[in-house]
Amino acid sequence: MTITDFKELNESGLYFDGYALVKSAQEATTKGGVPFFNITLGKQEKSISTKLWENKFNNHDLAQLKKVFENGNVLHIKGKLSEYRDQLQLTIDEFAFPEEGVVQVEDYLESAPEPIESLRAEYENYIGNIESPVLREICQRLYDEHKDKFITYPAAKSNHHCFTGGLLYHTVSMLRLGDHISGQYKEVKKDLVMAGIALHDMGKVVEYTNYFAPDYSKVGNFLGHITIINMFIDRKVQVLKDEIPWTRKEADEVYELMHVINAHHGKLEYGSPVESKILEAEVVHQIDMMDSRINMITYGLQDENLQENEAKRIFPMGLYYRTSQSD
Amino acid sequence: MTITDFKELNESGLYFDGYALVKSAQEATTKGGVPFFNITLGKQEKSISTKLWENKFNNHDLAQLKKVFENGNVLHIKGKLSEYRDQLQLTIDEFAFPEEGVVQVEDYLESAPEPIESLRAEYENYIGNIESPVLREICQRLYDEHKDKFITYPAAKSNHHCFTGGLLYHTVSMLRLGDHISGQYKEVKKDLVMAGIALHDMGKVVEYTNYFAPDYSKVGNFLGHITIINMFIDRKVQVLKDEIPWTRKEADEVYELMHVINAHHGKLEYGSPVESKILEAEVVHQIDMMDSRINMITYGLQDENLQENEAKRIFPMGLYYRTSQSD
Amino acid sequence: MTITDFKELNESGLYFDGYALVKSAQEATTKGGVPFFNITLGKQEKSISTKLWENKFNNHDLAQLKKVFENGNVLHIKGKLSEYRDQLQLTIDEFAFPEEGVVQVEDYLESAPEPIESLRAEYENYIGNIESPVLREICQRLYDEHKDKFITYPAAKSNHHCFTGGLLYHTVSMLRLGDHISGQYKEVKKDLVMAGIALHDMGKVVEYTNYFAPDYSKVGNFLGHITIINMFIDRKVQVLKDEIPWTRKEADEVYELMHVINAHHGKLEYGSPVESKILEAEVVHQIDMMDSRINMITYGLQDENLQENEAKRIFPMGLYYRTSQSD
Amino acid sequence: MTITDFKELNESGLYFDGYALVKSAQEATTKGGVPFFNITLGKQEKSISTKLWENKFNNHDLAQLKKVFENGNVLHIKGKLSEYRDQLQLTIDEFAFPEEGVVQVEDYLESAPEPIESLRAEYENYIGNIESPVLREICQRLYDEHKDKFITYPAAKSNHHCFTGGLLYHTVSMLRLGDHISGQYKEVKKDLVMAGIALHDMGKVVEYTNYFAPDYSKVGNFLGHITIINMFIDRKVQVLKDEIPWTRKEADEVYELMHVINAHHGKLEYGSPVESKILEAEVVHQIDMMDSRINMITYGLQDENLQENEAKRIFPMGLYYRTSQSD
Amino acid sequence: MTITDFKELNESGLYFDGYALVKSAQEATTKGGVPFFNITLGKQEKSISTKLWENKFNNHDLAQLKKVFENGNVLHIKGKLSEYRDQLQLTIDEFAFPEEGVVQVEDYLESAPEPIESLRAEYENYIGNIESPVLREICQRLYDEHKDKFITYPAAKSNHHCFTGGLLYHTVSMLRLGDHISGQYKEVKKDLVMAGIALHDMGKVVEYTNYFAPDYSKVGNFLGHITIINMFIDRKVQVLKDEIPWTRKEADEVYELMHVINAHHGKLEYGSPVESKILEAEVVHQIDMMDSRINMITYGLQDENLQENEAKRIFPMGLYYRTSQSD
Amino acid sequence: MTITDFKELNESGLYFDGYALVKSAQEATTKGGVPFFNITLGKQEKSISTKLWENKFNNHDLAQLKKVFENGNVLHIKGKLSEYRDQLQLTIDEFAFPEEGVVQVEDYLESAPEPIESLRAEYENYIGNIESPVLREICQRLYDEHKDKFITYPAAKSNHHCFTGGLLYHTVSMLRLGDHISGQYKEVKKDLVMAGIALHDMGKVVEYTNYFAPDYSKVGNFLGHITIINMFIDRKVQVLKDEIPWTRKEADEVYELMHVINAHHGKLEYGSPVESKILEAEVVHQIDMMDSRINMITYGLQDENLQENEAKRIFPMGLYYRTSQSD
Repeated sequence: MTITDFKELNESGLYFDGYALVKSAQEATTKGGVPFFNITLGKQEKSISTKLWENKFNNHDLAQLKKVFENGNVLHIKGKLSEYRDQLQLTIDEFAFPEEGVVQVEDYLESAPEPIESLRAEYENYIGNIESPVLREICQRLYDEHKDKFITYPAAKSNHHCFTGGLLYHTVSMLRLGDHISGQYKEVKKDLVMAGIALHDMGKVVEYTNYFAPDYSKVGNFLGHITIINMFIDRKVQVLKDEIPWTRKEADEVYELMHVINAHHGKLEYGSPVESKILEAEVVHQIDMMDSRINMITYGLQDENLQENEAKRIFPMGLYYRTSQSD
Repeated sequence: MTITDFKELNESGLYFDGYALVKSAQEATTKGGVPFFNITLGKQEKSISTKLWENKFNNHDLAQLKKVFENGNVLHIKGKLSEYRDQLQLTIDEFAFPEEGVVQVEDYLESAPEPIESLRAEYENYIGNIESPVLREICQRLYDEHKDKFITYPAAKSNHHCFTGGLLYHTVSMLRLGDHISGQYKEVKKDLVMAGIALHDMGKVVEYTNYFAPDYSKVGNFLGHITIINMFIDRKVQVLKDEIPWTRKEADEVYELMHVINAHHGKLEYGSPVESKILEAEVVHQIDMMDSRINMITYGLQDENLQENEAKRIFPMGLYYRTSQSD
Repeated sequence: MTITDFKELNESGLYFDGYALVKSAQEATTKGGVPFFNITLGKQEKSISTKLWENKFNNHDLAQLKKVFENGNVLHIKGKLSEYRDQLQLTIDEFAFPEEGVVQVEDYLESAPEPIESLRAEYENYIGNIESPVLREICQRLYDEHKDKFITYPAAKSNHHCFTGGLLYHTVSMLRLGDHISGQYKEVKKDLVMAGIALHDMGKVVEYTNYFAPDYSKVGNFLGHITIINMFIDRKVQVLKDEIPWTRKEADEVYELMHVINAHHGKLEYGSPVESKILEAEVVHQIDMMDSRINMITYGLQDENLQENEAKRIFPMGLYYRTSQSD
Repeated sequence: MTITDFKELNESGLYFDGYALVKSAQEATTKGGVPFFNITLGKQEKSISTKLWENKFNNHDLAQLKKVFENGNVLHIKGKLSEYRDQLQLTIDEFAFPEEGVVQVEDYLESAPEPIESLRAEYENYIGNIESPVLREICQRLYDEHKDKFITYPAAKSNHHCFTGGLLYHTVSMLRLGDHISGQYKEVKKDLVMAGIALHDMGKVVEYTNYFAPDYSKVGNFLGHITIINMFIDRKVQVLKDEIPWTRKEADEVYELMHVINAHHGKLEYGSPVESKILEAEVVHQIDMMDSRINMITYGLQDENLQENEAKRIFPMGLYYRTSQSD
Repeated sequence: MTITDFKELNESGLYFDGYALVKSAQEATTKGGVPFFNITLGKQEKSISTKLWENKFNNHDLAQLKKVFENGNVLHIKGKLSEYRDQLQLTIDEFAFPEEGVVQVEDYLESAPEPIESLRAEYENYIGNIESPVLREICQRLYDEHKDKFITYPAAKSNHHCFTGGLLYHTVSMLRLGDHISGQYKEVKKDLVMAGIALHDMGKVVEYTNYFAPDYSKVGNFLGHITIINMFIDRKVQVLKDEIPWTRKEADEVYELMHVINAHHGKLEYGSPVESKILEAEVVHQIDMMDSRINMITYGLQDENLQENEAKRIFPMGLYYRTSQSD
Repeated sequence: MTITDFKELNESGLYFDGYALVKSAQEATTKGGVPFFNITLGKQEKSISTKLWENKFNNHDLAQLKKVFENGNVLHIKGKLSEYRDQLQLTIDEFAFPEEGVVQVEDYLESAPEPIESLRAEYENYIGNIESPVLREICQRLYDEHKDKFITYPAAKSNHHCFTGGLLYHTVSMLRLGDHISGQYKEVKKDLVMAGIALHDMGKVVEYTNYFAPDYSKVGNFLGHITIINMFIDRKVQVLKDEIPWTRKEADEVYELMHVINAHHGKLEYGSPVESKILEAEVVHQIDMMDSRINMITYGLQDENLQENEAKRIFPMGLYYRTSQSD
């Protein structure tokens, strides 16, 4: 039977004729010296191991094939699904670039579990409700400036929220926690917590190279996202100072905001240049821990092959069990 | 002017004739060899440094005075308030035990910022809503058994929630967070989180010696509150096994509950015999961090002498600033 | 020449027709895509690398073969011994389950270097000589209850005493040290040291899944052997309390015993929920270190291929030299 | 005999009538309850313990006296030098503020061991010789902007270079090492090393509150000197971009400069938000270690009372011996 | 009543006229400015706090008094015993140096709990029984050379075995353990363990300044006792090489001995330049841990004031309880 | 085209007929079971991956081939250069030992970037200029004794200065820094710094097995190069004591020299038995850090394939970027 939607590839013997995303590709060689490719094809969260043998290279040389099977490309693929060591494996017969406009890469990338549009609306609503004009303006102007990347980038290269929109999703999850916690603990200044969360990881839009196969950029490696967002904020402050009355109160708010962001990794050894010195900085750090840990575990246990009561090693946290689901 | 309510002692020159709690007392001696006492008297969160000079010992010897000025006693005190190095200091003229029944120690101890009765009702409501019969029964029976101490003990000897009812207040604050977080993250099993929180520190009713001036008991030092609550739970389980149908599901729930509690300190070096291996264990640990850190900072900054923008070293966390209050 | 005793397989060219224990088996595949198995066969401490090529699968499919070559099975094997990269390698011709009752798995497992029966007698003698009725009864009842597993389980999954009867052997070696040390240092309370040693690792009968190929059980991972033995002891205490006069002295003895066991890992980061607070707890920890370190090194250096003055990396301790033997 | 120059106070019995700097002052009280002050008076590196007894308060109340004896004030002092427990001690008879303009505070503060003017000239020469226009301009403009503080501030609150001009002296010492090392190792890019050194600690002009009795400012505590200098540089870059042709090369130079500065503490746990990723960053860190360690030890051993072959504990490094001097 | 033996001073009101050892003395001063001395007098393990007021200085100036009350002197003391804050306190009336030859300092120092002579005989017997000529000769020659100090020095400046003969006592206790352990574990080479123990701390005779009030000598601080004993051994080896046939076997024995000693602190961070690489090195380290830990705890709990079930903080190990004594 | 100089092998298709050094060789096997060798051939810093297939074994068995392709041999090789996965790969046709005397191994080993002869002269000049007779004699006599190995050994097994003459080159680089720093900081005693540097790593001539393919010797593993040099120095001191007047000054110089060397690893956990207690010890440690870190990074980035702005992971330091070269 021929299948056209990659997500329906679920048993040995099916034939696939459709589009798939290249998630990774490594050149390899048989001991006899014949080159071939180990490729991971996928669509959203689904992935299948794939082989491209030399007899299907179709006159491409190795350099050309590397370009074709570059991480992030969506290709038109034909091939047969078989089973190998208990796992499905696709063997490619034909491959080609799709015609322009036929597929949207976005439809093939794994993405946040909630729609980007509603996450955006929620984010905009949270920052729109910040009462302090200085904090609100900084958030809105930086969001406006970096929106395109901010809503597609992942929140981390690996481990947690490493999918399209992960940065936005992680930020909104934290804003929800921040909203609740500012309500439960009356000493916590809500504006500062919400602005701090809204911007804490925004520097990643420069720290990473792209949204679909992110690596650290040179600037990311040299400075890190905390230093980057400090400079972003400072540039907005230089402008705002001329637009609104600027007193000790406004200056304090900016320094507190920067401090909350600088301290959000919690400890110097995790890359924060300072440790928390105000309540809100500690709160934002704790919220970040809470959301990222929950995501690491739930995301790590979303493994089709994992049975109830089975355990799996989740980097960097250790062994975790999938427990019985509540009804 | 003569003041009878300790909490109204606020300027040099006042004369006090009323009741006060002994918070601490140390024997000292002048270089001339004359004994005297440095005493901290207080009422609830208010404290004043106090001197008892030898000419006011009133025929008591040192051993008798130590009994009188034992931490936790409420005494009838007369004395004058003066100022010494910018701080108020009380010099005792007369002291006596109050007549039986005239004062309630509870009225003089510092206590949780919300009424114990409403915290109890909230706690009972949370555990009453646990759906799993096994988890709910364990919580309720242990609560019933240890209620008297559980609602008066502090949550820690120092640093956080170290006031009457602190254990209950800390537990209820965590239950509120647990309630919100189980709602926000659908993968989190609410019953397990709520039961784990409800019992996580209950072993402290044995680990500490009393509620008003707690030290570690010998058993507390030998075993610790985590080992103690494990044994408490196990004893209830031995009974419950004969009362309700006991399958793999019930056994799993008990082991998961014990695991959540065993892992709640987060790391082995903080005294957990195991580290978290299920999502709910990590969540309860994070909630514990969140609530205890917020309490340490807000409690530490509740210092009448601390101005806005001033900083204070809060053990064990470091320097913290009191920022301007939100309006 | 045909050999029937696995332990006599020592040169290339021999033909084997006899029984062997499966120590491990992994499915593999040639680059040409043909499946085969890498198997370690053995008898007691002897092991040989073995191949099962596809032409000898004998109509079994992969799933069936995995059942046959499951860790812990003893099989009837025929095959030829050759040399490959300086090491002996067995190529299987035929394999079959032996007829019921023909072989005893125990004869094929590696076991403690002293006979189990004499170790048992020595253990029973040591606990029988404990003078305190409470400590002696707890040891004897728990030994009676868990004897079957206690005398066959290993003392660790790897590194030290990881052979049949290792748990008993390690415990008896420690009892011998405890006996000497209680004699040499008069301040050390012998009863407490001996009872503490006798029970310190007994929780492993639940922490591990079985004795011949142990892994951590779910309960083992969730609670650990220290928490398990605490509950075991507490259950016996609940019974003993009704059988013998129970005073402060008996209660103290139980808490001290539990404390010795809880603290035997020495540091919180090694999984002890408390660190030693009495002399005997420190002594038992030091005895455990002494015996396990000596065993790790001597066991690790028992390598036929290691020459005098050669070194070998022994996990987790580092590089160790085999020195010249004393005459 | 009456002495007017504080530095000549060197034996018991002398009478002092001259100016002295208040280095510290603490209110104290005799056991009899009489207040007095423990004061350290000094001139440059010389210090003498001083008492102001109540009978010399001269009608000032405690609050007034605290203002007079505030750290950093230079006062006209009369008093007698005696010996107490083998150390000189000054007892104040009279004190007064000097008439306006009579004394220069600078003459009383401890200062760098080389003249500020020649250090300035050397610094200006080093940055003037930076060949890269971008790096040179950033250094010169920031130096021009912060010169007044940069040449008077200490390099640290304590431990090393904690004297007037210490920041400049430390920077110039490092520039000398940087100059030599860029010459000895040809792979090291000199411009980057020299510009990195020139600016690496300049943020301290904001991090500290003043030059004569420095504490961390609130901004210093919230952001730290590394984050501050990043913002300083970025503001200059925003201007320079419009003044000189700005290509990838210029951008790279700025990022490398920022990286060198960000990494100069060497490890995350010492407050660097990133660790060195280019040779020059590691070199500047090593130069900083070299100069600060040498200064800590030589400065710590500059103790008049320390004999040859005697040792002294130097915080934070440990015990150090003064060895025999080379001839 | 007048008491002449210091060890019988046990209640308020007694008058002392006898000899006592100065254990420590600090000059102090009353707030009124009058000097006095806080002195600890003692005999063997007994100590009493003592005051020497100015009216009893008996025309000595402070410098003279410091000479008289120097740590390690035995003096003729007259004075009255009173009680102060629940503790006995001696007030000196008269003091004098005893006539030459009347007292032996040794009778007043705290010493090992077994007679030095029998410890010496046991030590000599152990090293005399070493079978390897090289190891035995090295031990005997170094013992002969350093015997005088080796039998009187403590094993540590504080914490464990810090009494006269402590070094010998600690070494003999370890030899007893080494003797037993070499017997229990047949893989352990006894000669190497016994020689290693015999010499492991002998370098302390140079590392410390004296036996009755030891501090680190300059050489001790610069090199440490491990480097010192290495050089001692090497010098004997240079001689032995010419006296006995010297083959690879002898060289190996020397290197193994040095290695055992070099590694006896167990970890680099405890001052061993290498970590154990042979079984015997690990065994000697474990024996050192065992004996020093047992001594720290038993010695620390030998406190007359400590009741059964009371706890005391024992540096550097933590809180320890005195448990009920076995009958 | 046929190439005879290995260093000119730079494109696919060339044929090599010349000499090459075996840098490493591992036996491997095709999945079909056919043995072959993976060999790294090289000349100085150049290396090429090489295959020797079975059909070219030329009647050698595996044991013989291992002897031929032993690390450090120079062989006559014929073979073809091809490209495999973007990298050059040599396939051997023929191999043979060169005739005696035709090639010098030294010409094929990687060596220090400056000529050994000039480094030697510089070293000799530095130690000849040490003014203290004791320090100078110790340096010169030890240099004379160990010269042959000292000028060829590497400074480390890997990471830094791991080439022929690396030990001398590293030492001379440090002497240059020491010379400058003793000049810049007048408190630093030059003689001690220069003698300390000259000898600090000389023990490596015994710690390593050879100069071209060094491993740790047994003595190296047992004692380490710091303990070895201590004994070397001590032996010279025993002789010098009889040759020159020996006072406290000379003894102090020797102890200070030993201390500088003992402390040069900086921290106990890096293998120094003591940490620095004099200025010069700290200075030598810092100089060692400076030179070894610079060498690790520059050596690690000397990779022909690394482009400007590309990064490479340099063990044990992390990711490093090759920046644009200064002009």
